[in-house]
Amino acid sequence: RRQVHISKALFRSSAVLSGDALDMCDSFSRRHLGPNDEDGKAMLKAIGFDNFESMVKSTVPAQILTQTELQLDEPLTESEAIQSIKSMADKNKVMKSFIGQGYYDTIVPPVILRNMLENPGWYTAYTPYQAEISQGRLEMLLNFQTLVCDLTGLSMAVASLLDESTAAAEAMQMCFALKGKRGKNNKFFVSNDLHPQTIGLLETRAGVIGIELVFGNHSDADFTEGNYCGAIVQYPNTYGSVESPGESYKSFTDRAHESGAMVIAATDLMALTKLAAPSTWGADIAIGSAQRFGVPMGFGGPHAGFLATSDAYSRKMPGRIIGVTIDSEGKPCLRMAMQTREQHIRRDKATSNICTAQALLANMAAAYAIYHGPDGLKSIAGRIHALARVAHREIEKAGFTMAQDPFFDTFTIDVSSKGMTASQVQAGAEAVGANVRIIDDNTVGLSMGEGITRDDLKMLLAGAFGIVNPDVSADASLTEVDPSVARQGEILEHPIFRQHHSETQMLRYLKALENRDLALNHSMISLGSCTMKLNATSEMVPVTWPTFCNIHPFAPTNQVQGYHELIKDLNEDLAEITGFAAVSAQPNSGATGEYAGLLTIMKYLESKGEGHRNVCLIPKSAHGTNPASAAMAGMKVVVVDNDKEGNIDVVDLKKKIDKHRDNLAAFMVTYPSTFGVFEEGIIEIMDAVHEAGGQVYMDGANMNAQVGLTSPGLIGADVCHLNLHKTFCIPHGGGGPGVGSIGVAAHLAPFLPGHVVGQEASGDLCGSDLCVPKKEGAVAGAPFGSAAILPISWMYIKMNGTEGLKKATQYAILNANYMAARLNGAYDVLFVGKNGQCAHEFILDLRPLKASTGVTEEDVAKRLQDYGFHSPTMSWPVAGTLMIEPTESEDLAELDRFCDAMLAIRSEIDDIGSGKIKLEDSPLRNAPHTMEVIMNEKWDRPYTREVAAYPAPWIRANKFWPTCGRVDNVYGDRNLVCTCPPLEAYMDDDEVKEVA
Amino acid sequence: RRQVHISKALFRSSAVLSGDALDMCDSFSRRHLGPNDEDGKAMLKAIGFDNFESMVKSTVPAQILTQTELQLDEPLTESEAIQSIKSMADKNKVMKSFIGQGYYDTIVPPVILRNMLENPGWYTAYTPYQAEISQGRLEMLLNFQTLVCDLTGLSMAVASLLDESTAAAEAMQMCFALKGKRGKNNKFFVSNDLHPQTIGLLETRAGVIGIELVFGNHSDADFTEGNYCGAIVQYPNTYGSVESPGESYKSFTDRAHESGAMVIAATDLMALTKLAAPSTWGADIAIGSAQRFGVPMGFGGPHAGFLATSDAYSRKMPGRIIGVTIDSEGKPCLRMAMQTREQHIRRDKATSNICTAQALLANMAAAYAIYHGPDGLKSIAGRIHALARVAHREIEKAGFTMAQDPFFDTFTIDVSSKGMTASQVQAGAEAVGANVRIIDDNTVGLSMGEGITRDDLKMLLAGAFGIVNPDVSADASLTEVDPSVARQGEILEHPIFRQHHSETQMLRYLKALENRDLALNHSMISLGSCTMKLNATSEMVPVTWPTFCNIHPFAPTNQVQGYHELIKDLNEDLAEITGFAAVSAQPNSGATGEYAGLLTIMKYLESKGEGHRNVCLIPKSAHGTNPASAAMAGMKVVVVDNDKEGNIDVVDLKKKIDKHRDNLAAFMVTYPSTFGVFEEGIIEIMDAVHEAGGQVYMDGANMNAQVGLTSPGLIGADVCHLNLHKTFCIPHGGGGPGVGSIGVAAHLAPFLPGHVVGQEASGDLCGSDLCVPKKEGAVAGAPFGSAAILPISWMYIKMNGTEGLKKATQYAILNANYMAARLNGAYDVLFVGKNGQCAHEFILDLRPLKASTGVTEEDVAKRLQDYGFHSPTMSWPVAGTLMIEPTESEDLAELDRFCDAMLAIRSEIDDIGSGKIKLEDSPLRNAPHTMEVIMNEKWDRPYTREVAAYPAPWIRANKFWPTCGRVDNVYGDRNLVCTCPPLEAYMDDDEVKEVA
Repeated sequence: RRQVHISKALFRSSAVLSGDALDMCDSFSRRHLGPNDEDGKAMLKAIGFDNFESMVKSTVPAQILTQTELQLDEPLTESEAIQSIKSMADKNKVMKSFIGQGYYDTIVPPVILRNMLENPGWYTAYTPYQAEISQGRLEMLLNFQTLVCDLTGLSMAVASLLDESTAAAEAMQMCFALKGKRGKNNKFFVSNDLHPQTIGLLETRAGVIGIELVFGNHSDADFTEGNYCGAIVQYPNTYGSVESPGESYKSFTDRAHESGAMVIAATDLMALTKLAAPSTWGADIAIGSAQRFGVPMGFGGPHAGFLATSDAYSRKMPGRIIGVTIDSEGKPCLRMAMQTREQHIRRDKATSNICTAQALLANMAAAYAIYHGPDGLKSIAGRIHALARVAHREIEKAGFTMAQDPFFDTFTIDVSSKGMTASQVQAGAEAVGANVRIIDDNTVGLSMGEGITRDDLKMLLAGAFGIVNPDVSADASLTEVDPSVARQGEILEHPIFRQHHSETQMLRYLKALENRDLALNHSMISLGSCTMKLNATSEMVPVTWPTFCNIHPFAPTNQVQGYHELIKDLNEDLAEITGFAAVSAQPNSGATGEYAGLLTIMKYLESKGEGHRNVCLIPKSAHGTNPASAAMAGMKVVVVDNDKEGNIDVVDLKKKIDKHRDNLAAFMVTYPSTFGVFEEGIIEIMDAVHEAGGQVYMDGANMNAQVGLTSPGLIGADVCHLNLHKTFCIPHGGGGPGVGSIGVAAHLAPFLPGHVVGQEASGDLCGSDLCVPKKEGAVAGAPFGSAAILPISWMYIKMNGTEGLKKATQYAILNANYMAARLNGAYDVLFVGKNGQCAHEFILDLRPLKASTGVTEEDVAKRLQDYGFHSPTMSWPVAGTLMIEPTESEDLAELDRFCDAMLAIRSEIDDIGSGKIKLEDSPLRNAPHTMEVIMNEKWDRPYTREVAAYPAPWIRANKFWPTCGRVDNVYGDRNLVCTCPPLEAYMDDDEVKEVA
Repeated sequence: RRQVHISKALFRSSAVLSGDALDMCDSFSRRHLGPNDEDGKAMLKAIGFDNFESMVKSTVPAQILTQTELQLDEPLTESEAIQSIKSMADKNKVMKSFIGQGYYDTIVPPVILRNMLENPGWYTAYTPYQAEISQGRLEMLLNFQTLVCDLTGLSMAVASLLDESTAAAEAMQMCFALKGKRGKNNKFFVSNDLHPQTIGLLETRAGVIGIELVFGNHSDADFTEGNYCGAIVQYPNTYGSVESPGESYKSFTDRAHESGAMVIAATDLMALTKLAAPSTWGADIAIGSAQRFGVPMGFGGPHAGFLATSDAYSRKMPGRIIGVTIDSEGKPCLRMAMQTREQHIRRDKATSNICTAQALLANMAAAYAIYHGPDGLKSIAGRIHALARVAHREIEKAGFTMAQDPFFDTFTIDVSSKGMTASQVQAGAEAVGANVRIIDDNTVGLSMGEGITRDDLKMLLAGAFGIVNPDVSADASLTEVDPSVARQGEILEHPIFRQHHSETQMLRYLKALENRDLALNHSMISLGSCTMKLNATSEMVPVTWPTFCNIHPFAPTNQVQGYHELIKDLNEDLAEITGFAAVSAQPNSGATGEYAGLLTIMKYLESKGEGHRNVCLIPKSAHGTNPASAAMAGMKVVVVDNDKEGNIDVVDLKKKIDKHRDNLAAFMVTYPSTFGVFEEGIIEIMDAVHEAGGQVYMDGANMNAQVGLTSPGLIGADVCHLNLHKTFCIPHGGGGPGVGSIGVAAHLAPFLPGHVVGQEASGDLCGSDLCVPKKEGAVAGAPFGSAAILPISWMYIKMNGTEGLKKATQYAILNANYMAARLNGAYDVLFVGKNGQCAHEFILDLRPLKASTGVTEEDVAKRLQDYGFHSPTMSWPVAGTLMIEPTESEDLAELDRFCDAMLAIRSEIDDIGSGKIKLEDSPLRNAPHTMEVIMNEKWDRPYTREVAAYPAPWIRANKFWPTCGRVDNVYGDRNLVCTCPPLEAYMDDDEVKEVA
C-alpha cells in the first residue's frame, strides 16, 4: 500500500497582507479554507505536484481550462461584507403586512430563533440518511408530521415540501398517478378561488405531463363523465371565505368521489386550529404552508410546505417521510421511511423529483407548535380571528360593502362602495407603514397575522380607510369562529405538544435533540455530491435580520429594493461564474432547478417550431433527479451507457443521438461526472448533441470542482442549475432548505420562469436584460423562491472574490486527491482521469472486499460512526461503494483523521478476511455501538468495549455517541408509523421488545 | 419519611388571555416560570396551602410584608419589549471611535460572537466550581491566562478581573499587602500619565485603607526613603507614548526595586504583540484590559481585566486562578486553584473581595487570540500601528504640532498650533461620524483600533483636521514599531494558538469545549445563593446589537441618549423594587456593590462629622465578600453570632452594638438570611442598629425571595446591592460578568459613586434627582460599569411587570418548599422559619450521615454529576451541607428528577450504612464516573457499570458525561501550573501517570 502522511503542521503563517499596510488583514478566504498555505504545499508535494497550476493542468482537460480570471468585485473582509449587505438590507422597508395570500405576519419565539435557526448544531446537519446519528432532527420532523396529521385530520404526512404551491402541484401529480393516466381521466378541476400563485404553478406543471386543467367555481364542476383524476379547492379560500361560495365542500367532495376523482384541500394550519379538519368533509389530500408557525416571511421563503393524505395513498406521497422503526437492539427509533419511492431508486418512474425538503423550517414550525401547545395555538388563532372580526365590523360600520361569508383571518372589501379605488387604499396603508392586498381595481383584501397589534390595526383603519376613532375592543366571543364551520374536539393531544411550554423546558428539549445529531460543528461530513463545506457565520448573520425576514413576497416593488439589488447582483456574479447570459433564482431546490431548466429548453424549442422534440438523453450514472425531472417536464428519457472507466460511452451516446436525432431535445450531463472525474470527451459530447439540434443541460451538483477553473458556459452547456446549498454555502439544514438557481445561455434567457405577480412586484426576475418579464412558467410559489437565504451565497462570493473562489476549487480538488492518495491501496479508487487524478470527489470500491469477507458498504458506514464520522455517500452512483467529497473547508488534520479511520477499518476488515474474527461477531457488523450497549454488564463479544467505542486515539477528547443501534429499515417500512408513537413506546424497553 | 410526589401534569392550560381579546396573548411570565398554573396548585397543596397568599403569609413575617403593589409599567410581550428597547437603542449613535483611553474599536469574529457570546451553552454556565463538568471553560480560561502570561512575560495570571482600572487597584493592594502596612511603607507612586479613570479608582481605593498616593512624573519619584510599597506606570501611557517621557522605565523600576517597592505596568495586550514585554524592564505586575481582543466596547463593559505577576507573588493574586491538576485516575485536568486565598475562606483577611470575574469575556478574548494566532495578531497590531503612523504623518504634514515619542496606536496633537481648539476638532470629527479624545482645550488624542478602515481615516482627517487629500498609503515598514522598543522573539508559541485558524476548526473547538460543560441548557443548577434562573433569549438578544455594542464609554452625551434612557429607567424600576430613593449601576460585580455601598455609608457619616465611626458588624453566616468588602472600605469587622436556629443572635448583636456604640458605622445583613430563612427579628435588628447611629447594609444576594413581597427599603435598610446576575437574569457566563447595582435611601444618595468623566459624559449617574453628579468615588473604570448587559435586566422587568415579578418570587419560594418537603426525612433540612417554611432556598445537613457512614458532601455532589445534575452549593454557609435554590424557572418534572436523584443517593448512602457496600468501593466515593472508566474492560467494582453511569431512568435519553474523574485539588495547589501545559501532557496517559 502506498502510504501518504504528513505530520501536522501546527505553526502556520496565516495572515494575509497584500499590498498596502492599511489593507484589512483578515481575509475571509483564509477562514473558509481548511488547510493553510504550508499544509497546502505539503499536500501538493505528497500527491506529486509543485503547485496548484500543475495539479490543475493535470486534472482538468486543457481544452476547457479557462484562460481568463473571473471578473468579480475585490474580496471584502467579513466585517466589510456585513456592512455592505446591511446597507442593501436597509433599502427594504419593513411594513406591517395585511396582504395574506399564503404569507402572514408571525412571531418567531426567540428561543427557537437562537437555538435552531441561528444554531450551527441544527443548520449544518445533513439530510438524516445516517439515522443513528440523526435521531434529534428525525424526532422533530416526526413531530412536524404529527402536527400536520393532527390538524388536517389525515393519517400520513411528509416531512415537508418546498412551499404551498409546489405542494399543490405535487398533490395534483399524486391524483394523476393514482387515478389518471395520459389521455384518460386526465382532467383536473381547479377552483378559481385558489391563491393565484398556486394556480400559476399548477399551470406550469399540468400541461407538459398531459393533465388538463379545468378552472371554475367548484359548484359548477361536472364530474359526471368520470374523466377527472382530481380537484383542488382552497379552505379557507384566497379571499378568506371558509368555503368558496356555492355548494358545500362536503357535497362537492362527495360528487368528485362518486366519479372516482380525488379532492385536494389547500389549507392553513393556523385556521385549522379553529376550523373543522378537511378530512371531515372528505378531502383526500391536504396541502399548505407551515410558514405562519414561526417562520419569517422572508420575501417568499424558505418555508415548509406540507402534504397529508390517508394511509391508502401513502406510497404515492412525494418527498421524504420520517417513520418509526426499531434498531438492532429492538428499541424504537426513527429513520426516513419508504426510500424506495424516491427518485434515486425509481428515477423517471419516481413519484416526484423532490429531493431537498425544507427540514430546518419544518423543524421550526414543529418547535413553534410544541412551544405554544394546543391552548397557546388556539389563543393565537382566536386572537387573529378577533382582529379580523373587529376590522370587518369597523370597516363595515364605516359604510363599506363587505364580503359576508364566514371567515377566519381574511376578508375582502368593495372599496368602490365608498368611491375609492384599491390603489388609493393601498397608498393610504403604505403611508402609515402597512400593506393590503389589491385584488382588483375595486377590491381590497385584508389578512391578519399573529404579529398584528391593536395599534397596527388602528393605524391601518385610519390610514387606509379613513376610520378615525374605531372601536378596537373585542370580547372573547369574537375569538370563536362561526359554529357551522368550527372544529369539534381537542387538537394536538400527543404529550409532545403538552410539556415544553416554559423557555427552560424548550431550550433543554432543543439542546437534547441537537446533541443527538452529528453536524459540521463536530466533524467532517464527506458526502460525495453534496459538498458539505463551511457555512460561515458571517454568511448566516444577515439571514435573520428583520430587513430580510419580515418582507412579504408580494410587497410593492418600491419596498423591496434591497432584495432586488441583492438578487440582481448575485445573479450577475453567478452568470459570470457559470459563463452564462442570465440566471434565475426562483427554483427553490436543485431538482426544481433541473425541472425549470428542462422547461426552459422545451419552451425554446417550441418557439423555434420544434415542439415535437422531447427525447432527453441521460447517462446511466446521472443523479436520480435527472430522469425524474425530465419525466416531470414531459420528456421521454433515453439512457446512455457509461464505459468501464466511468465516462460516458461516446459510442453509445452517438448511437442514441442518431436514433433520436429528429426528436432530440436535450442531453443531461453532470460535470465533472458523478464518478468524480473531469471527462476528457466532454467537448466532443457537447458538439455531438448540438449538431443534432439538442440542447445540453448541465447538472451543477459538481460545480464546486469548476468555479474559477472552467464553467458550464465555457464547456458549451446551454443551461445549468446550481445547488447554492452545495457550492455556494447555504447550509443543508438537516435536509433543506436549498436553492437551485439556473443559468442559461442567451438564446434561452427569454424562457426562464416568470411569475403571476408579474414584473410590477417581482422586478427583473433574472437580473438580465435578456430576460423577458412574464407571468407564465413559475416553478415556485414566490417570484424569487427562497429569497431569504440568497444573502448567504452573496456573502460567500463577495468575501472570496476571484482569487478566493478559485483557491476554494483548487483546495477542493487537492483535498480529494490527497485523501484518494492516502486511501489508495487499502481501497480501490474506482475512477480517475487520464493522469490519475480525481476531481473534487472520488469513489472507493468496497465490492472486492465484500466478495472476500462479506463486509458491506453499510458496515463501513456504520462503523465510521464509532470513529466519530458521518459516512460518505453510500452506494451511489455505484452500488457497493462509498463516494468521498471532503470539500476545501476541511483541514489536513481532519482529513488525516478520516483517512486513519478508514485505514483502521480496512485492518478490521482484514481481521475478518484472515479469519481472526467472524463477520457476525465483528465490530463492523455490530456498528454503531451505543452507550447502552457499552454500559451493559453482559459483554460477550470477541473485541473489547474500547475497540467498540474508542477505536482511535482522537476519539477520547470528543466522543460522539450514536443514539441507537443500526436501524432496521425493512421493519419500519412493513409497519409504517409516521406520527409520534405514544410516549410509552419509549419508556419501557422490555415492552417494546415484546411488541417487536 | 414524608413522601411528597405529584404525578407529572402533561396537560396544561397555558395561554393567558386577560381582558380584551385583542391583547397579545403570549405573556412572557408563562415562559419564565417553570411550573404551569396547575402544577403550581398541586405543589401548593402538597406543602399544605390553598394558594400563594397563604403560603406567603406563612413564610414572610407579617410586619415586613408589603401592603401595596409595585408601581411598574404594564408587562410587555417579548416582541413588544424587543421593539421597545430597539427604539431606545436606536437613540445611541454608532460612531467610529478614535478616543482610545483603554477602549478600542475591535472586530468580534462572527464565529466567536455566535458560538460563545450568543450561545447559552457558554453563557448560562456557572462558575466552574464543579471542575469535572466544567473542563471546557476551564480550558479556555487557562488559554486566557497563558495568553496574558505570554504577552506580559510574567509567569502567573488570573482568570480575569473586572476591568483595567479595578485591576490596577487590585495590583496596588497586592503591593501594599506584600511590601507595606498601614502607616509604614504605605506610599504608592502613581504616574500622571495613567488613564484618568484608573487614577480615579486608585484614589477611591487608596485612602480608606491607608495607602498614600503620590502623583507625579515617574522620573521625579523619590524612593530613597524606602517608604513606598509600589508604583504604577502606564505602558504605552494614556497619551500613547510607549514610555512616559523622562527616565526609562527600566531605570525607574531598578530604583523602585532597590528601595523595596514593587512596580506595576498598566499595559495593553495588542501593543505587547509588538512591544517588549513589561517583564523585560522589570515590572513585577502587569495589568490591563483584554477588551480589544474581540470584545465589544459596550459603553464600558463588561470586558476582562487581566493581572499577571511572577511565581513569587502568586499567593497574593486577587480573584480566580485556573490551574492544572490530576484526577482520580491520575490524568491531567483543570480546576480553580488556590481557593483557600478567596474571601469565602479568608473573609476580612482575604487578598481581595473579588468573586465574580469576567469569565465569558476572558473566554472570548482567549478565543480571539487562538483564532487569529500569533501571526494574525501581529498583522492586526501592525496594521493598527501603520494607521497611527499614517495619521501622524499626514497631520504633521498639515502643519500641526505633534507628540514625537515612539508610539503604538495613540498620539496627541497640539491643535492650537493651527489655531484650533480641541472642541472644534471633536465637532468636525463628529460631523463625519467619528470621535476623538479631548485631552485639554488645546490637545486632542487619536487612537487606532482594528475596525478602523482606510476610508474611516480619510474621513477623520478631512472632517476633524481639514486635510483634504491625505496620502493614506503605507508600506510594510510602517507596521514595525521603533526598534528601540520592539519585542524580541516569538509570541504565543504554545500549540493552542497555532491550530484553530479556519472557521471550521474554530467552530469545532468551541463546540468540543462547550460539550464538556453542564449549563442551564442541560439541567437545573440549584445553587443556593446564586439564583440560576432562566436567562431568556429575548433578554439576551439586544446585548449584541451594534447600537449597544459599539459605543465608547466616554462618547459625548448626545450620542448615548439610548443608554442614558435605558439606565435611568432601569434604575428607577430597581428603586421601586427595592423601596429606595436612588440606584447606581456602576458596580460591576456584587462584591463591588458591597464595597460601593459601604463607601457610601462611610462618606455619609463623614459628612455628618462622624468620620470616626468605622465598625462594621457582620453575622458569622454572612457571605465571605461582606467582611472582605468591609476591610477594603477601611472598616473594622466585628463578627456577630448566630443562634442555633440559624438566626442572628439578637442578644449578641445588641451586646456588640453596645460595645461599639460610639464607633458603629454599619451592620451588614443578608435577607432572607444566608440560611434561607425570613428571620422574624429583622425589624428589631434594624431598629437596634439605627438607634445606635449605625447604618444598615443589606446584601441583596437573596433578593429573589423579596421582589414584590417586601423590599430592603420597607424592611428599613439604608443601602442594598443587587446581583443583577442573580435576581435580574444576567447569565452567569461561566463565572461572570455580573452587575452589582446599589440602591440607597435618600440620605445616602448624594454619596453614590461618581466618575472622572463627570456629568458631561455620564449624565445622571444614578437616575435620580437626589444624586449629585461628581467626579469622585468611582468603583469601576466606566461610569456605568458593565453597561452593555443592563438591557438584560431591563427586559426582564419590563416583560414581567408587577404581577410577573411577584409571581416569580412566589414560585421561587414554592419550588424551594416543595423540594424541601420531598427531601425532608431523607435528609435533615437545617433551618426553617417559625411556621416550618424556608424562603427560596434551603440547606440539607449531611453531617449526621457523614458521622454514621463517612459519606461526605463532596461525595454527594460528585455523585449528582452521574445523575446529570450540577451540585447545589457545597459547604456554605455551613460546612458539611448542601444548599439548594431551585429558582422559579424550574418545572415540576425537573424538580422531581432532582429530588429522585437525591433520594436514590440517600439509599446509596444507606447501603454503606448497612454494610452492603464499603465506602471506598461505593459509587458515591468513586463518583463521578467518566466514559473512560466505564469503557475500561477491567471492572472490579461491586456495582455495575449501569449503576455507575445510568443510575436513574431519565438519564438514558440525555446522558451528560463528566470529562474527568474527581479532581485532586491538593495535588494542583502543591504543583501550581497556571498556563497551558505542553500538549504532550494530554497525549500520552501513561507518561502522565508516571509523572504523577
